[in-house]
Amino acid sequence: MSDPTYKVVEIVGTSETSISKAIEGAISKASGSLRHLGWFEVMQVRGNIADGKVHQYQVTLNVGFTLE
Amino acid sequence: MSDPTYKVVEIVGTSETSISKAIEGAISKASGSLRHLGWFEVMQVRGNIADGKVHQYQVTLNVGFTLE
Amino acid sequence: MSDPTYKVVEIVGTSETSISKAIEGAISKASGSLRHLGWFEVMQVRGNIADGKVHQYQVTLNVGFTLE
Amino acid sequence: MSDPTYKVVEIVGTSETSISKAIEGAISKASGSLRHLGWFEVMQVRGNIADGKVHQYQVTLNVGFTLE
Amino acid sequence: MSDPTYKVVEIVGTSETSISKAIEGAISKASGSLRHLGWFEVMQVRGNIADGKVHQYQVTLNVGFTLE
Amino acid sequence: MSDPTYKVVEIVGTSETSISKAIEGAISKASGSLRHLGWFEVMQVRGNIADGKVHQYQVTLNVGFTLE
Amino acid sequence: MSDPTYKVVEIVGTSETSISKAIEGAISKASGSLRHLGWFEVMQVRGNIADGKVHQYQVTLNVGFTLE
Amino acid sequence: MSDPTYKVVEIVGTSETSISKAIEGAISKASGSLRHLGWFEVMQVRGNIADGKVHQYQVTLNVGFTLE
Amino acid sequence: MSDPTYKVVEIVGTSETSISKAIEGAISKASGSLRHLGWFEVMQVRGNIADGKVHQYQVTLNVGFTLE
Amino acid sequence: MSDPTYKVVEIVGTSETSISKAIEGAISKASGSLRHLGWFEVMQVRGNIADGKVHQYQVTLNVGFTLE
Amino acid sequence: MSDPTYKVVEIVGTSETSISKAIEGAISKASGSLRHLGWFEVMQVRGNIADGKVHQYQVTLNVGFTLE
Amino acid sequence: MSDPTYKVVEIVGTSETSISKAIEGAISKASGSLRHLGWFEVMQVRGNIADGKVHQYQVTLNVGFTLE
Repeated sequence: MSDPTYKVVEIVGTSETSISKAIEGAISKASGSLRHLGWFEVMQVRGNIADGKVHQYQVTLNVGFTLE
Repeated sequence: MSDPTYKVVEIVGTSETSISKAIEGAISKASGSLRHLGWFEVMQVRGNIADGKVHQYQVTLNVGFTLE
Repeated sequence: MSDPTYKVVEIVGTSETSISKAIEGAISKASGSLRHLGWFEVMQVRGNIADGKVHQYQVTLNVGFTLE
Repeated sequence: MSDPTYKVVEIVGTSETSISKAIEGAISKASGSLRHLGWFEVMQVRGNIADGKVHQYQVTLNVGFTLE
Repeated sequence: MSDPTYKVVEIVGTSETSISKAIEGAISKASGSLRHLGWFEVMQVRGNIADGKVHQYQVTLNVGFTLE
Repeated sequence: MSDPTYKVVEIVGTSETSISKAIEGAISKASGSLRHLGWFEVMQVRGNIADGKVHQYQVTLNVGFTLE
Repeated sequence: MSDPTYKVVEIVGTSETSISKAIEGAISKASGSLRHLGWFEVMQVRGNIADGKVHQYQVTLNVGFTLE
Repeated sequence: MSDPTYKVVEIVGTSETSISKAIEGAISKASGSLRHLGWFEVMQVRGNIADGKVHQYQVTLNVGFTLE
Repeated sequence: MSDPTYKVVEIVGTSETSISKAIEGAISKASGSLRHLGWFEVMQVRGNIADGKVHQYQVTLNVGFTLE
Repeated sequence: MSDPTYKVVEIVGTSETSISKAIEGAISKASGSLRHLGWFEVMQVRGNIADGKVHQYQVTLNVGFTLE
Repeated sequence: MSDPTYKVVEIVGTSETSISKAIEGAISKASGSLRHLGWFEVMQVRGNIADGKVHQYQVTLNVGFTLE
Repeated sequence: MSDPTYKVVEIVGTSETSISKAIEGAISKASGSLRHLGWFEVMQVRGNIADGKVHQYQVTLNVGFTLE
């Protein structure tokens, strides 16, 4: 069997609640269209502010998966 | 109406409890003196250690707001 | 008394639950063999994915302590 | 309704005329196959030289859009 | 006379027309409240997209001025 | 004819033998589904270790190709 | 008492004599208008040259202080 | 024929008018003494401010050419 | 069983022959004193030149292993 | 004789007097427990401020030495 | 005798065969016009692709030599 | 008169005494062959260690001058 090749895509998850929920939501969403997701790396954590509070977390992820 | 201009300031929030509380505390504090806060970006997460445990989280944020 | 010197080591904490637990676990582990831990900095947050969910968080930390 | 997720792709626009035209051409091209383009960031500006003049501008962009 | 000290602030200019206009607008705006502006550096060029076209350029600048 | 636009994707080639084989394998694999591959850039070289020896090279590449 | 918040500002000290004097001058100047200065980080060391000699050192510092 | 080797030099073009003119001027100037200029990359865009307006754009370029 | 913790150390392998041999030699050397080596990342490739030829490759690696 | 392997450790020297003394003190301290120190690189210069003056310089160094 | 000064130049070696040959070719070429080459550092590895295969490796090097 | 163009070269100054002397020596050396030196930026500070002491400081500078 040949050596595996992987692809890495950049996605941004969002959540009004927490950084974790933004990460988990993005991975859940990506797994709907990409099979064999293997790993992720957090590249950036940003967010919007409204009325002096965090309104939305935006977490940029690199997600790797096996190319079939 | 002219195109808006924004300013970005760097602040460091702290919390003995969690990264989220350090972020939220810093934004709450900044909103006391700056109006129209619009977004933030996490630049660095550090902390102090005491007795082998995290004693304080220190989260450096860039915070953007509208220049009036 | 002479000026203190510190050393910085890089460790990776893991947790199936949260980023915080990965940080706390790594610092707890490091404090078992290194005395005088003083501070940490989060260098990278990665993780493994299984079945479309985060299976393990991996948080790389730089940890500083006093050289005796 | 669930929190939105975005995807970011890297494209390179080119123009023999100007940096702006390279940006606009790349976004126009990308909008032909990707719906819901929302934002871009300029990552790199390069170009080819011929006869001591700029022959072609090459502008690398990250472009974000909503994952449906 | 003592050696001069400078301060650097980060601002974001915007324009629906061009990168140049975003830079010029931000510097014009900043010069309304800060005297002795001396130099700038472009840190980031981003923008919003609407209907497959650049809707707004957003140019982040560091601007330096003399501290009196 | 309009100015060409390119897309850049990130892939990871692997090989138990050498860095070169990991690069070549990834490009060969990518050329199976993407036409008009034009250039690549090595972004990262990592690997796994087993029994005190390199067990697998993992080379992350950015690969550019013409958007039709 | 609530968790402290800090602000970080960027200043550039100058000296015709040495890097140290540029650092010290900038911190002295900043302490004239900002209370509770706590720490600094050297971000860049530049300078002007005249007649084949260093004419002026320019040291960019990030300076942190407590937000009251 | 042997594989070609290239050299890369760093130059700074200036213009009181625009970023493009600074780029074009620098490449034109460099082509006076260097043959076989092949490509450039924009490394930094800075400028001077006078009377609240951009007085001069300064664009740092890496320029590559064939070593004969 | 608790979540594993890893440590990362920086080593520099050298070889007069090739980059691969420098990597392999460093990992072999490190495995003599560190058990459970798991992965590596190439951080820098440098070398010495003598008589117009590469005299020695120097490859800086980060190497990760399990903390027991 | 086999090709040498080096290890790099990160230390932080401190001094209330100067950057040089912080560097020299850290190297002197490290040489007490590590033999064959060969080179260093300054990674970061920070410090504490008290009463509007530099109270302590903190210089982070990477220090390389021969693995026996 | 005074302390030596070095100069660093950036060159790009190419090879249709391997990364090593691109490095060696560039150093050989540079040694034809520059005496006292002392060290190099690999800054970037890129290449062209043709027919789904690596057609040419392009390795950017910083090369240091003694200024006489 | 046309807009000026500058060139930037990278040099490494050395001194067994201090960082300042390494900077000054390199600029003095460079001014012997290059006219119109205008500015410098410190890019890296390294050094050699012998007998547990700094044996030589090596300071890498970018130096800019007017192209005539």
